[in-house]
Amino acid sequence: MSSRIRTDLAIEAEPLFRTKLAETDSIPGLRCKEESRRGFSVSTVEVLDERGEAAVGKPKGRYITLELGALLRREENAFAEACALLAEELRSLLHLPVFSSVLVAGLGNRDITPDAVGPIAVDNLMVTRHLRQALPEHFGAFRSVSGLCSGVLGTTGIESGEIIAAVCKAVKPSAVIAVDALASRSTDRLCRTVQLSDTGIVPGSGVGNARLALDEKTLGVPVIAVGVPTVVDAATLAYELIRDSGLEIDGDALNSGANMIVTPRDIDKNVRDISKLIGYGLNMALHEDITLEDIDMFLS
Amino acid sequence: MSSRIRTDLAIEAEPLFRTKLAETDSIPGLRCKEESRRGFSVSTVEVLDERGEAAVGKPKGRYITLELGALLRREENAFAEACALLAEELRSLLHLPVFSSVLVAGLGNRDITPDAVGPIAVDNLMVTRHLRQALPEHFGAFRSVSGLCSGVLGTTGIESGEIIAAVCKAVKPSAVIAVDALASRSTDRLCRTVQLSDTGIVPGSGVGNARLALDEKTLGVPVIAVGVPTVVDAATLAYELIRDSGLEIDGDALNSGANMIVTPRDIDKNVRDISKLIGYGLNMALHEDITLEDIDMFLS
Amino acid sequence: MSSRIRTDLAIEAEPLFRTKLAETDSIPGLRCKEESRRGFSVSTVEVLDERGEAAVGKPKGRYITLELGALLRREENAFAEACALLAEELRSLLHLPVFSSVLVAGLGNRDITPDAVGPIAVDNLMVTRHLRQALPEHFGAFRSVSGLCSGVLGTTGIESGEIIAAVCKAVKPSAVIAVDALASRSTDRLCRTVQLSDTGIVPGSGVGNARLALDEKTLGVPVIAVGVPTVVDAATLAYELIRDSGLEIDGDALNSGANMIVTPRDIDKNVRDISKLIGYGLNMALHEDITLEDIDMFLS
Amino acid sequence: MSSRIRTDLAIEAEPLFRTKLAETDSIPGLRCKEESRRGFSVSTVEVLDERGEAAVGKPKGRYITLELGALLRREENAFAEACALLAEELRSLLHLPVFSSVLVAGLGNRDITPDAVGPIAVDNLMVTRHLRQALPEHFGAFRSVSGLCSGVLGTTGIESGEIIAAVCKAVKPSAVIAVDALASRSTDRLCRTVQLSDTGIVPGSGVGNARLALDEKTLGVPVIAVGVPTVVDAATLAYELIRDSGLEIDGDALNSGANMIVTPRDIDKNVRDISKLIGYGLNMALHEDITLEDIDMFLS
Repeated sequence: MSSRIRTDLAIEAEPLFRTKLAETDSIPGLRCKEESRRGFSVSTVEVLDERGEAAVGKPKGRYITLELGALLRREENAFAEACALLAEELRSLLHLPVFSSVLVAGLGNRDITPDAVGPIAVDNLMVTRHLRQALPEHFGAFRSVSGLCSGVLGTTGIESGEIIAAVCKAVKPSAVIAVDALASRSTDRLCRTVQLSDTGIVPGSGVGNARLALDEKTLGVPVIAVGVPTVVDAATLAYELIRDSGLEIDGDALNSGANMIVTPRDIDKNVRDISKLIGYGLNMALHEDITLEDIDMFLS
Repeated sequence: MSSRIRTDLAIEAEPLFRTKLAETDSIPGLRCKEESRRGFSVSTVEVLDERGEAAVGKPKGRYITLELGALLRREENAFAEACALLAEELRSLLHLPVFSSVLVAGLGNRDITPDAVGPIAVDNLMVTRHLRQALPEHFGAFRSVSGLCSGVLGTTGIESGEIIAAVCKAVKPSAVIAVDALASRSTDRLCRTVQLSDTGIVPGSGVGNARLALDEKTLGVPVIAVGVPTVVDAATLAYELIRDSGLEIDGDALNSGANMIVTPRDIDKNVRDISKLIGYGLNMALHEDITLEDIDMFLS
Repeated sequence: MSSRIRTDLAIEAEPLFRTKLAETDSIPGLRCKEESRRGFSVSTVEVLDERGEAAVGKPKGRYITLELGALLRREENAFAEACALLAEELRSLLHLPVFSSVLVAGLGNRDITPDAVGPIAVDNLMVTRHLRQALPEHFGAFRSVSGLCSGVLGTTGIESGEIIAAVCKAVKPSAVIAVDALASRSTDRLCRTVQLSDTGIVPGSGVGNARLALDEKTLGVPVIAVGVPTVVDAATLAYELIRDSGLEIDGDALNSGANMIVTPRDIDKNVRDISKLIGYGLNMALHEDITLEDIDMFLS
Repeated sequence: MSSRIRTDLAIEAEPLFRTKLAETDSIPGLRCKEESRRGFSVSTVEVLDERGEAAVGKPKGRYITLELGALLRREENAFAEACALLAEELRSLLHLPVFSSVLVAGLGNRDITPDAVGPIAVDNLMVTRHLRQALPEHFGAFRSVSGLCSGVLGTTGIESGEIIAAVCKAVKPSAVIAVDALASRSTDRLCRTVQLSDTGIVPGSGVGNARLALDEKTLGVPVIAVGVPTVVDAATLAYELIRDSGLEIDGDALNSGANMIVTPRDIDKNVRDISKLIGYGLNMALHEDITLEDIDMFLS
């Protein structure tokens, strides 16, 4: 029955959910830790082998989860610290030679608010590939970064994966960073958690459609996934509540929420804010020694 | 504990919810009926006196609920039939002398998708007051209709009710129609149900803030409310599910969903569609013998 | 033939245009000066009496024009300096008792880019009236500011002036600040010039329709107008060019541009930027000792 | 000095402009005609050889221009007739085998109103490629159509041409249709003229940057260009007016309008309307026997 639970977060996989990560050492094939960095909680789940894959239902690799709830309490400097943290963690996953080029893919549908994280993050990206080519004397100090919003199957007729693979073949970046909205099983995490992983991503996998994966195998270069949970399935929420109450209920009651999602009341603003944070964090990870003011100036 | 349930629909008041309206005849102070009109289900709840007010927690008056689910099955002509039905029911509530003038108020926040029903309905309104004044020879056959989006307290600093009352005093319409988004306790009704009533409305009442009412007492003219449920409170959904399962759980579990809402996955499109339907239905109610094509032409 | 020239800027009135303001002392009824403040040029035209009114075609009062072209050269700190300058000049026109309240009216049509200055400026306004009322212990240090976007006649059926006058009567502010887009006769000034005046404004006057004025006479309180030129009439541009070339041409050639406007190529971004500057400048004028960071935090 | 004139329309090339096409027979290398079809004027310029290329400054091929001004007079059925005309002319340029597949590329920047024709046209496109693949039993009667908005160099860092070529290689359509905004030298044509050609297109060529061409040579399949003029360069307008007046003026006067454009006052609505017409016309060209109602239903 746990198949009713939908989540894209490694730390919400069944054996890790509602458990202190520190107490999960005994699960074979996983190595987990939780630390506090720059005032935020950072959890790392390493899936080491097939036993770990079976346990969390995700491919081998590292899954880093940043809990940015402190932002909401508007602590002094929280935005700057969160960007810096995101940049550091991204760099820990992505060992890029100096000046190697990166393609950032913004997945999802810009016109559906909870799915717009990827496109809005790309709006906040310092795109430099064309500037380095045209004006190397001015932009030589920047990494070559390109950005692509691939749209969604329903409006292009082409899978995101096909488009990104095709453009990747033409542009030949050293790595791809794919930004997407995710599903969580916990309303507390919506729009305030970021998951980074070095395993790539399956666009729209949350929606239950198997799609072309974006990973090193399909693209030929490392693929870092950056995801933000923006929705809980209503059926998942219902199931969690029921389970908490310790009894069985029939599936029909749960199905009444099919195609319903749970989001924060002010989802529009929440998505805008977290997507900006991701764009700014990517900029700080990809370009050396730039400040928030530099980014504001570049994007304005 | 039923105070945890939030709904703005009369037919979802505790004694009527999950009950056949036909079987509610015995509740003193209420007169209910349900019929099928133009392929849609139409429920009417009349609150006759104080006993009825106590039973449903709403002021005396008529509450008409249109269930427009058939639209979603895309039956032939469903949009046209639903507009015509809405127009007919509006006219049954609002007995307007020929050519008396009407002010339509679009309540809610255009920038928060599930709250944007009112403003988008007004976008689809045939506004004619200025045209009748300036070009009576061309627009003399139309009723004088004006439209006002009053914004929300958080962005204007002024209550919607204050703004509408002030403009009403200046414009002197014969009646006001106020369009707003509502909360429901049933996901099935989201974006596919319209409630009309002749009792006026309290803007944002769903959000738990007492605001200045818009009704005949405050505005001096009849006020028809047109509402569409676009969200279920996550806490309400949780409570319903728990209650269905027949056991008590503690309040903390429910509170985890505070400030969370349940909406259809494609809320942006759903809100756009139902708001257009309301605008078109109002146009057909307010102007004699106009067709959907006339409206398209006028608004284009 | 100069009636073909359309401009809303006092400094572009025929006797002042293409003239150094310092050399206009001899025009009876006018007192003009030009100075440099915070790196920007500031021109002041005082219309002293009826002779001045006849000369510039505008009512008695002070017209202050800020030329913010330096912003475009992205000089260090230019945005902050421009906001501070705008705040200072506004305060010089508007002598507000401490904590007296202000209503800011954003005129124009949000959906027509060059007309959206007023609404976007209000989006960037710190609206505090409701907060002072509800939470005086936290917001007691702020002036009571409310914001109103009145829409346009074509979509409301009600003149902006009627709506603002009505709300003004209800809210009873000590002063009104009306923000609007203007027409200029000089492409150089588009989206980089701000005109302040203490004479009020006629909404949409640029468009050639006489409308209800917003001024101390109609509203009963001082009205400060803040305007930004965003368009040059194509016919005006044509006329200027022709006149420069020193010959007469027939009117038909000029009429070919009827209903055409000249704007900067990137009008969307230009309007967004200057409107934000106006909002921020208003905030700094209306609230004591606040910084750009305070405003960012308040609006986020 | 004619190099100051900027136009993307073949019929506005110097030897054809302000000339009746019927009287241009004597220009070697060109074959021109003008006819009335479905109530609209249809001009065809065939560039036959190098002499023709030199004369109009455009590559060999057919350029069909539809003047849709009648739409603005809102004649009965004008939208339907214009869509049907566009579909017929497209089919005359594009001889597609039954059920061969087509990729429609929407060029330009969605966030700059006069440049948004391509993206909005694709919003109005019936995209079917994925449906034919997934549900052949329901969508077998439709041609396989995909749609791609490639963004612009400034926000992706990648030339439109590179992206489209890459996706084209992956998707392997039988033909590409590229939709873009154009520049005209005549304000009368803005947002009411459509140019079709079988020669492909150079994205952003109007802006003066040489870019990768989209044509049969670069993409390997026929490329039909569909363009709509939405702007006149202010410098072009000025030059035209000056020239009409028969005298020389110095370049500086003209340069004052650099980076200024002339557009219709209500450019937002105009662009939306003509882009919808193009989307609908493409749908009627690409799918057999579909009506406007079918398209409305599909897109809703």
